[in-house]
Amino acid sequence: MCRWNAYFGDPIVIDELLYQTDHGLIDQSLHARQGVETTNGDGFGLGWYGAAGGEPARYRSVTPAWSDQNLRDLAAHIESPLFLAHIRATTGTPVQQTNCHPFKHGRWLFVHNGVLNGFHAMRRDLMLAVDPELYDGITGSTDSEVLFYLALTFGLERDPLGAVERAVGFVESTGRAHGVEHAVQMTLGFSDGERLWAVRYSSEHRSRTLYVSADRATVQALHPDNARFKRLTDETRVVVSEPLSDLPGVWVAVPEATALVIQRGQDEQVPFRPQVPEPAAA
Amino acid sequence: MCRWNAYFGDPIVIDELLYQTDHGLIDQSLHARQGVETTNGDGFGLGWYGAAGGEPARYRSVTPAWSDQNLRDLAAHIESPLFLAHIRATTGTPVQQTNCHPFKHGRWLFVHNGVLNGFHAMRRDLMLAVDPELYDGITGSTDSEVLFYLALTFGLERDPLGAVERAVGFVESTGRAHGVEHAVQMTLGFSDGERLWAVRYSSEHRSRTLYVSADRATVQALHPDNARFKRLTDETRVVVSEPLSDLPGVWVAVPEATALVIQRGQDEQVPFRPQVPEPAAA
Amino acid sequence: MCRWNAYFGDPIVIDELLYQTDHGLIDQSLHARQGVETTNGDGFGLGWYGAAGGEPARYRSVTPAWSDQNLRDLAAHIESPLFLAHIRATTGTPVQQTNCHPFKHGRWLFVHNGVLNGFHAMRRDLMLAVDPELYDGITGSTDSEVLFYLALTFGLERDPLGAVERAVGFVESTGRAHGVEHAVQMTLGFSDGERLWAVRYSSEHRSRTLYVSADRATVQALHPDNARFKRLTDETRVVVSEPLSDLPGVWVAVPEATALVIQRGQDEQVPFRPQVPEPAAA
Amino acid sequence: MCRWNAYFGDPIVIDELLYQTDHGLIDQSLHARQGVETTNGDGFGLGWYGAAGGEPARYRSVTPAWSDQNLRDLAAHIESPLFLAHIRATTGTPVQQTNCHPFKHGRWLFVHNGVLNGFHAMRRDLMLAVDPELYDGITGSTDSEVLFYLALTFGLERDPLGAVERAVGFVESTGRAHGVEHAVQMTLGFSDGERLWAVRYSSEHRSRTLYVSADRATVQALHPDNARFKRLTDETRVVVSEPLSDLPGVWVAVPEATALVIQRGQDEQVPFRPQVPEPAAA
Repeated sequence: MCRWNAYFGDPIVIDELLYQTDHGLIDQSLHARQGVETTNGDGFGLGWYGAAGGEPARYRSVTPAWSDQNLRDLAAHIESPLFLAHIRATTGTPVQQTNCHPFKHGRWLFVHNGVLNGFHAMRRDLMLAVDPELYDGITGSTDSEVLFYLALTFGLERDPLGAVERAVGFVESTGRAHGVEHAVQMTLGFSDGERLWAVRYSSEHRSRTLYVSADRATVQALHPDNARFKRLTDETRVVVSEPLSDLPGVWVAVPEATALVIQRGQDEQVPFRPQVPEPAAA
Repeated sequence: MCRWNAYFGDPIVIDELLYQTDHGLIDQSLHARQGVETTNGDGFGLGWYGAAGGEPARYRSVTPAWSDQNLRDLAAHIESPLFLAHIRATTGTPVQQTNCHPFKHGRWLFVHNGVLNGFHAMRRDLMLAVDPELYDGITGSTDSEVLFYLALTFGLERDPLGAVERAVGFVESTGRAHGVEHAVQMTLGFSDGERLWAVRYSSEHRSRTLYVSADRATVQALHPDNARFKRLTDETRVVVSEPLSDLPGVWVAVPEATALVIQRGQDEQVPFRPQVPEPAAA
Repeated sequence: MCRWNAYFGDPIVIDELLYQTDHGLIDQSLHARQGVETTNGDGFGLGWYGAAGGEPARYRSVTPAWSDQNLRDLAAHIESPLFLAHIRATTGTPVQQTNCHPFKHGRWLFVHNGVLNGFHAMRRDLMLAVDPELYDGITGSTDSEVLFYLALTFGLERDPLGAVERAVGFVESTGRAHGVEHAVQMTLGFSDGERLWAVRYSSEHRSRTLYVSADRATVQALHPDNARFKRLTDETRVVVSEPLSDLPGVWVAVPEATALVIQRGQDEQVPFRPQVPEPAAA
Repeated sequence: MCRWNAYFGDPIVIDELLYQTDHGLIDQSLHARQGVETTNGDGFGLGWYGAAGGEPARYRSVTPAWSDQNLRDLAAHIESPLFLAHIRATTGTPVQQTNCHPFKHGRWLFVHNGVLNGFHAMRRDLMLAVDPELYDGITGSTDSEVLFYLALTFGLERDPLGAVERAVGFVESTGRAHGVEHAVQMTLGFSDGERLWAVRYSSEHRSRTLYVSADRATVQALHPDNARFKRLTDETRVVVSEPLSDLPGVWVAVPEATALVIQRGQDEQVPFRPQVPEPAAA
């Protein structure tokens, strides 16, 4: 169980989202409300893109987010138009930096909240399916990182959503071969620095929570006096595991088995349908 | 807000108390029930005396206790007749090893749950009162460590309870000089390897919880079939911030403003009465 | 024994100085050549000012600099016109984040290489001299941090070099009162975001090494084909504990008992003369 | 490049070996003399067996050994008849606890100094050869841990030296398939709590250094006045990457391509000959 946030829009100082909200991610590290666990103290990570594009920067630590002075300092001094932050509550794998999200490959960042059920039994089979060229990039021991590398293997860079659908389908079919009926429980956030994808899905269709901020016009109409909302632009979108405030109408639940594509211009919302990849694809 | 446990009795493997209980200290690090905070994830410490006496050993870490593999391994392999364990929830001072309890001086170990209200304003005055010979031994920045050094200054080694009463009285009078009415909130555990003291006290007489295990005969009469309790001896006493189980009759609340002296033979329970030390004593 | 670097000039990506040099600070963390110790693995810190001014950001860690992935990532993504980096080799005080340089107060950053001889004996006297209003800002346990707070106490913000001369004079006179003949061994770097000061001094006039980069014209004349040097401007100055390369003529030793003031326009080089502060000043 | 020590004999307090020697392992963490690197600051580990047998305990940390207060405290309080300690200098894999030696499986401890050349290219092939039942026990990312799991796969528990010979042979043949001529560089120490094995081997027959203490009679005859040596028994053996002192005649170099079996009664010294395992064995 973890929590994550992602921001897409005009550059903001990162702590506006992480610290300067009623119930931001740092607060959630101690007091999550909608998760399985209230504490997410097994490390955290922040990945951000610069205004000029290029590969993202990343800061990860095994310290609980709530007490990390460096995170506080960095968040207060770094501006970014696109970033993902994650706080971790391990389901058993070690608390170490290489197990902290976001995972990174080239321009890609990837965060996961959830679990691959039966992971320990099927870990070897999943690892075998990872492209041998990519295999040595796996430096941690989590289910989440393997899921990311499966998505890379199945074509994340050329067909992002299709690749994730194939990765999830592959995990589900591997799970069934190991007697696991509902192998995947997840919300995912990932980005290449241009677009931000957010997916809510679980094999048993009872997925972890995920919310996206309503569009600017709606938010401003509902809260005409809110100074922060006055600064919103049409491009601003925030995706969160749980709402950052109790303000009505601001946070919209992402439907079950759904993917969002957040981008300049019109965003998209599409069904998320796992696919079992062709044998050749693996 | 913190939580602590202390054990006095026949040598046991430490994890019997820390891990092999319904609601032991490691469980409390994530799920405290009676504290101000449910999470105590800002480091921990374990101090233990060997069967042969001598100075205690200590293991402290800024890792949350619940995920520390070393603690699990050490607790499973070390036997001790007398040990104190502490999990920390900082009230603002940095998460660093030198701020983790137990504090240690020669044969003495010391743990504190609570807070010195107004500490930041009176920190300098309290530090000035510490014996210049002892001053450089202070390596952290917590109120708890200063309280320990004040107790050492006021004679902990020759008159343990009196010294703590003077230290607390001194903090209270310093607090009043700074406009703080109720400066001290505490439960304390400390030991020289021979005896174990436990104190429950706060200036406003609304102290943090503290419990001591009932005597062997009572516990065994109430739970005649409990295998663990069959092994109890008359000397065994456990002191805890909150009960390790819900078994009725096993845990007795320590009264407000009271000190326990746990030792071979008859234990003692006495009132705890802060004293303002003579100017010369400081 | 520590090593530090400071940069003043047009904004550069920080890793150009820390990593992209023959013998940069990260290399010095494992292989220092001119220090008392070759290894500086007891933590590090980086403080930097943004192009827009304001308070500096800071990243400190107890990890050795050579293996810190976050530092590598941050340095590769952060641009700054003025920054200080420090690698630590402790002379005995704990390895903890609050003991890592640079120390910070408002807009000020401060790094120290050296030692206050006899510090443990005179620590209490030095702490007593710190302005009571500033006292609680001291969160670590090093001699360096106390020296910084003495400088703040003696007027760093209104008369930077004079304040440091008084702080050093005070430490020397306190040292003599404790029977220490040569109390101060130091090179210092400090900044308010506008100017950068660098001081080389020791009571016995055998100070740790300190170098400053030669002026643009000299460097370019000596190395007309060096691509990096082509980009130098007249304002660029780098101060280092030991040279970042073996190129002749590039690094000029700062004389004994000397302070540099690096600023827009003409820099200054002045003698550094400790002063015993008036009793009233303390 | 790493350094390690192992002790077999009558129970001693661990710090006698780690700290109370001229050039013990903790000193070697900063000032190794015979290694490729002088600094071994990328974490360390200590594994020890109790006098009563059973599974070993272990303490590992990413802190450099020289500054770890817990290690100092533990070593001063723990007695053991058989222990292995290791300090790490990474050849590139992350500094994290799961990458620190000794590795552990049931009653077995395993330390490695050296490198599998070409590891990143052949990592996947090596991982595939690990027994699927054991696969999920691999929690780190080092070559050393994979070598340990290959040895377990090839029968470490029933034929210790044969299993290691097969594991090394398998790595060498995998290396050759990847175009690596000399894949293995190693000294190994491993134990089941009853016996201690030490191996010196490299594919190119230019192995890292390894020494074993001379027998009691020799050592005492050479140094008749040495108090420490007076306490030696016939069973005491110490194996070290580099000598703990300069005393002549005390440390005997283990020959190239040789294994020692240290046990109660007569120790053994045998050639170490890698074997390519039968396909079926994998």
